[in-house]
Amino acid sequence: MIQTPYLLFLGDAPDQLAAKVAQGIKDWRPENAIGQLRLSECKADVGLKDMTLEQAAAAGARTLVIGVANRGGVISETWKEVLRNALAQGFDLASGLHNLLKHEADLVELAEKHGLALHDVRIPEVKYPIADGRRRAGKRCLAIGTDCSVGKMYTSLAMDAEMRRRGLKSTFRATGQTGILITGDGVPLDAVVADFMAGSIEWLTPDNDPDHWDMIEGQGSLFHVSYSGVTLALIHGGQPDALVLSHEPTRPHMRGLPDYQMPPLEAVRDAGLAMAKVVNPDCQVIGISVNTHHMGEDEALTYLEQTEKRIGLPAVDPFRQGAGRLIDALLDI
Amino acid sequence: MIQTPYLLFLGDAPDQLAAKVAQGIKDWRPENAIGQLRLSECKADVGLKDMTLEQAAAAGARTLVIGVANRGGVISETWKEVLRNALAQGFDLASGLHNLLKHEADLVELAEKHGLALHDVRIPEVKYPIADGRRRAGKRCLAIGTDCSVGKMYTSLAMDAEMRRRGLKSTFRATGQTGILITGDGVPLDAVVADFMAGSIEWLTPDNDPDHWDMIEGQGSLFHVSYSGVTLALIHGGQPDALVLSHEPTRPHMRGLPDYQMPPLEAVRDAGLAMAKVVNPDCQVIGISVNTHHMGEDEALTYLEQTEKRIGLPAVDPFRQGAGRLIDALLDI
Repeated sequence: MIQTPYLLFLGDAPDQLAAKVAQGIKDWRPENAIGQLRLSECKADVGLKDMTLEQAAAAGARTLVIGVANRGGVISETWKEVLRNALAQGFDLASGLHNLLKHEADLVELAEKHGLALHDVRIPEVKYPIADGRRRAGKRCLAIGTDCSVGKMYTSLAMDAEMRRRGLKSTFRATGQTGILITGDGVPLDAVVADFMAGSIEWLTPDNDPDHWDMIEGQGSLFHVSYSGVTLALIHGGQPDALVLSHEPTRPHMRGLPDYQMPPLEAVRDAGLAMAKVVNPDCQVIGISVNTHHMGEDEALTYLEQTEKRIGLPAVDPFRQGAGRLIDALLDI
Repeated sequence: MIQTPYLLFLGDAPDQLAAKVAQGIKDWRPENAIGQLRLSECKADVGLKDMTLEQAAAAGARTLVIGVANRGGVISETWKEVLRNALAQGFDLASGLHNLLKHEADLVELAEKHGLALHDVRIPEVKYPIADGRRRAGKRCLAIGTDCSVGKMYTSLAMDAEMRRRGLKSTFRATGQTGILITGDGVPLDAVVADFMAGSIEWLTPDNDPDHWDMIEGQGSLFHVSYSGVTLALIHGGQPDALVLSHEPTRPHMRGLPDYQMPPLEAVRDAGLAMAKVVNPDCQVIGISVNTHHMGEDEALTYLEQTEKRIGLPAVDPFRQGAGRLIDALLDI
């Protein structure tokens, strides 16, 4: 568990997209972030107050979160200076970078000296159990996609936000690095050892109140040959009561796989539901979340309407339209 | 790649079953093993010539393979003495134990001193790629099961042996510790990090002659909630042209999951084939391999006959009947 509130480090981000982790925290857990720290070359701005380490420490910040992607797979000396100063001033550090904080000897030494934590959310910090398939109390919703990166995390975050807006019990359960940094907790599923994948998701979504929903972040796709095993472990470990289908209609082929066509939504629905019923015979597909980012407004609305008619389930873009209709459908089961 | 021939270490095996790795090597790759080394308390015997380290070294043995399970998760001092002596006499060591050889300081020191290898097949020694789904030359057959431990490895080994007996091109591809020790090579899939599972199987089954078959060892089951993700990664990484269904009819519930019933063979066929067609649209299910170990001869034959009639595919127990009919069906596609 990463201590909040955060100061978000935007470094020397070359553009806004490079700071998408910081933007995600600002969008979804604004209460977790009290400011941003930018170097002079920084081209990103997530709209938080610019603060020095001293100002943020005085305002109560506990963790400096690296909210920006780095380039070249090394942590630059410019960054290092900031990180060392942060440790000297009592900040924990949190990072989703491939190159780990705990592989940097100077940071490890300073963290030990000051009794501070280095959180590398890229890799597991927990010894997960093997899944036992035991039925758990509480309810769970999982987004499954036609492909990777079609908006599954966004969908689950939007549904979680809508649930809480209505005063209902909901927890977003992160399964990837960005989601973990947004919420401060989760399982970096792509880095978990094969035998423990499903068990890590059981661990992440334990018994809860009967009317509580875990909104589980999906990963990959049953139809993406590189990562399908991760997706199936999520379905079987997550024990979902409800599935949401996630889709991006303008993609020419599966992400990173030029020879593979996107599967139809019907195929994802059928395969996902069949696999979910192994672990939860009452599971239902409750709706469709479409990422229409690359479509104009009219085109998007027409596509959503046609999809809704074709599949017979509410089809919405939660970014354009909010997640209200998905939550209506969820509460209806 | 583990150097052959082996001397098989049976240690102080309390019974024959404890030496199943050694037995597997003796049964399937007798040319790889020139003898067995037993301590005085050993209750197992795989029928090889008893040899001292000196005798085996003189006969050309290159690797001492630990062919027996240990108890309590530690390598005992009695074993250690044998292992140290083996290194001193120029043997590599190979082990599938959970407690790794390379975590034993004295063995590491001796291995370095003598320039010898410590093979811990429990964990990967290779940095696998992420799967790219590219169509590969050659043919591949994968056994998929109703459950774990129903005879998938046995089936693939028997099919590989029958292919080679007929003078046809075939390679058994090991995906588990026992299989790796039997053949000297493979992927310990249960220990591979999630993102690289399918890629490790692509790596294991590369381009080959058009008439060459990889007989890929299956793992888990699409219907076993603890390990299903591993199974799906095998299907998508393995790109199978043929699937064999493996089953054990007398099991009261899924292995280790008392609340889960075994799925019908039809469900395994349909789910497995649908997933295989994502990566190989021409994939076919060619037969059924039934482990009738816990049935009498009449009961077994009746079960096989009824199953064959019900599913419409050859149903055999390769242990009782050989794998000939499965290979006939395989060559027929």
